[in-house]
Amino acid sequence: MRYIDFVDLSYQPKENDLICDFYVEPFKTDLKVVAGAVAAESSIGTWTELTTTKPYMEKLHATVFEVNDGNIRVAYPIELFEKSNMPNILSSVAGNVFGLGALDNLRLNDIHFPTGIIASFKGPRFGIDGIRKMLKATMRPLVGTIVKPKLGLSTADHARIAYEAWVGGCDLVKDDENLSNQRFNPFKERVVKTLESRDQAEQETGEKKVYLANVTSETDEMLKRAQFIQDHGGRYLMVDILTCGFSALQTLRNQDFKLVIHAHRAGHAAYTRNTKHGISMLVLAKISRLIGVDQLHVGTAVGKMSEPKEEVLQNCEALRGQMEKLRPVLPVASGGLHPALVPSLIDIFGKDFVIQAGGGIHGHVDGTQSGARAMRQAVDAKNGGVPLKEYARDHRELRIALEVWRRT
Amino acid sequence: MRYIDFVDLSYQPKENDLICDFYVEPFKTDLKVVAGAVAAESSIGTWTELTTTKPYMEKLHATVFEVNDGNIRVAYPIELFEKSNMPNILSSVAGNVFGLGALDNLRLNDIHFPTGIIASFKGPRFGIDGIRKMLKATMRPLVGTIVKPKLGLSTADHARIAYEAWVGGCDLVKDDENLSNQRFNPFKERVVKTLESRDQAEQETGEKKVYLANVTSETDEMLKRAQFIQDHGGRYLMVDILTCGFSALQTLRNQDFKLVIHAHRAGHAAYTRNTKHGISMLVLAKISRLIGVDQLHVGTAVGKMSEPKEEVLQNCEALRGQMEKLRPVLPVASGGLHPALVPSLIDIFGKDFVIQAGGGIHGHVDGTQSGARAMRQAVDAKNGGVPLKEYARDHRELRIALEVWRRT
Repeated sequence: MRYIDFVDLSYQPKENDLICDFYVEPFKTDLKVVAGAVAAESSIGTWTELTTTKPYMEKLHATVFEVNDGNIRVAYPIELFEKSNMPNILSSVAGNVFGLGALDNLRLNDIHFPTGIIASFKGPRFGIDGIRKMLKATMRPLVGTIVKPKLGLSTADHARIAYEAWVGGCDLVKDDENLSNQRFNPFKERVVKTLESRDQAEQETGEKKVYLANVTSETDEMLKRAQFIQDHGGRYLMVDILTCGFSALQTLRNQDFKLVIHAHRAGHAAYTRNTKHGISMLVLAKISRLIGVDQLHVGTAVGKMSEPKEEVLQNCEALRGQMEKLRPVLPVASGGLHPALVPSLIDIFGKDFVIQAGGGIHGHVDGTQSGARAMRQAVDAKNGGVPLKEYARDHRELRIALEVWRRT
Repeated sequence: MRYIDFVDLSYQPKENDLICDFYVEPFKTDLKVVAGAVAAESSIGTWTELTTTKPYMEKLHATVFEVNDGNIRVAYPIELFEKSNMPNILSSVAGNVFGLGALDNLRLNDIHFPTGIIASFKGPRFGIDGIRKMLKATMRPLVGTIVKPKLGLSTADHARIAYEAWVGGCDLVKDDENLSNQRFNPFKERVVKTLESRDQAEQETGEKKVYLANVTSETDEMLKRAQFIQDHGGRYLMVDILTCGFSALQTLRNQDFKLVIHAHRAGHAAYTRNTKHGISMLVLAKISRLIGVDQLHVGTAVGKMSEPKEEVLQNCEALRGQMEKLRPVLPVASGGLHPALVPSLIDIFGKDFVIQAGGGIHGHVDGTQSGARAMRQAVDAKNGGVPLKEYARDHRELRIALEVWRRT
């Protein structure tokens, strides 16, 4: 088959086809041939005629069924893939195609998994409802923080700062993504001490609190760390899904730990940032939900690492909207957030999400506890329909926060 | 610390620093501040002043010590990282930094691991010498093929085509990267049948032959498949390092299977192709060697998925050159190759590499066996210092191949 034979604009995708939406360049000349190359290289074709092609395999070829400027849609028969094997699926639809000489740029913008594939993955164990139930906070966005500075704090200081954050009003306290098991703050000691802080904060506040300890590492080590968290009364873990990879993420999920999986996405922007090449966050969000994370960073639409609002909303929809029987995933907004941004955030995200702030809490001039308090005050204000400035009049921590960080 | 405090052009990197070479844009204005942001976000800083910074952690900050147009070099104290934890290292130096609002593009061009980190990884178990010893082919490039078409062949046809390739002269026969355990060609049956073909081909040719069965999947499943290969007399496995991820790759390596690890890199171009953003193949090559693959796709410098020759040579140097006590890794040239390209390939790669051709073997008009023969003839010609055209006069398969595919 020649590349062009993989294009059939009259093709009607079947219910069990997997469909990919790509953007491809160049798209002025021979777009159909380039599109056909994408479909060929990700299914049964290659760059030259083969003597080994058998008639019985023809039904497996992928088909380009839409071509619109640089935007193409490709349908893949489900038989091409091994169910429940995400690396296998990605090696096909997001593999060699990015390197094809026939094109300069290729972006996998969206992916639509058929029922047969969705049903082969576990999806989230807890999801939004499970998290709400655990935290007993049903009517408002959750407030989280990352212990800052990212690296270098001693275990005692780490646990102390976590305590301050919880007491001030945070629901969640998270390790930074590059904190794992360094000498200055070893994993096991940190988990034990920080969970002690959590217990103390729960007693003092009467609220449920959770600690998101970072297990990201080699698979076996990751499972041991998750087990350690569970054995010591933890309720959450965090994992960096891209730097550890999808095989290990699935292995972690498959253990059915009684731990909510918080998914960080360090490095995603190496893929997702270029609008013409790579893989969209939307695709990564759908994959993560299939495999079964419970909450995932999706961008903020405001703040230091901004992605366009429409993209963030698409990510949220992919996580929270209907996806066969999979539980909804809680979106996490994180990166450069501070209290003044809370009203815009809630307008964008609704109430089912985590507002996660590091610097925007620990940077409060009166310290972490006041920073956390200011953030909860901002959430309470918006939740009660009161403008922040008005609420700040008799809420000192918020007032100071609004002076430190003006709305950006 | 402000971002600019992470820049010190008088800093002399210490022997145990990990060093990253980045390209960053914009670089006209405030490059130092942007560079400082990269160093801050990948070590102990963030976007705002913190109240929680402790004096004792200052020694852990990363330092931008070179700034040259958009090219910056950053030194990281080794204490920032957990040794032997590649995801942890990447979450720092190749994590959030790609999404920073302060920059438009960021590319991690090179990474220099200090002894302390290199020594914490296993590196290749076999490496070039181990592979040479296994295959008893010491004086020439190895010849490999991928069974084509990529997907859809029955197990019987797959094993038959593999047999043809070996008998024709291939040393290695590999599954395609998107073949795993689909119904049309299930993994276990395929391994058994293809290894039978291998045994038969070894008997008939008197040469050592190897089959690279693709184990790429969820970690536990991957280990089971590797064990299955070993239990059935296989000597090699292949794995897709990016779609499965580095945690699982390390887990696979840690088992010390008596199997050479062939590393495919499907999807790498989503990262590596944009020269201004993402992660270079050079970095991925170094990481792969540390974790311990034995052979790795590095580009061809010629053919359908071409990368610039200088980059391919850098990748080869990263794999084959001195790297503390780690064994050298065998580079694999793959993608759009055919016999006419062999002389250029050998000029570029030398003799320590694999010439891997799919379409360039199975596309031979007289079939796979003739295609493999033509490829070996091309290698023999070049190895013996004879021009292909001259050698083709009394080597029919090569002569036909040269007619089918002219040098491109």
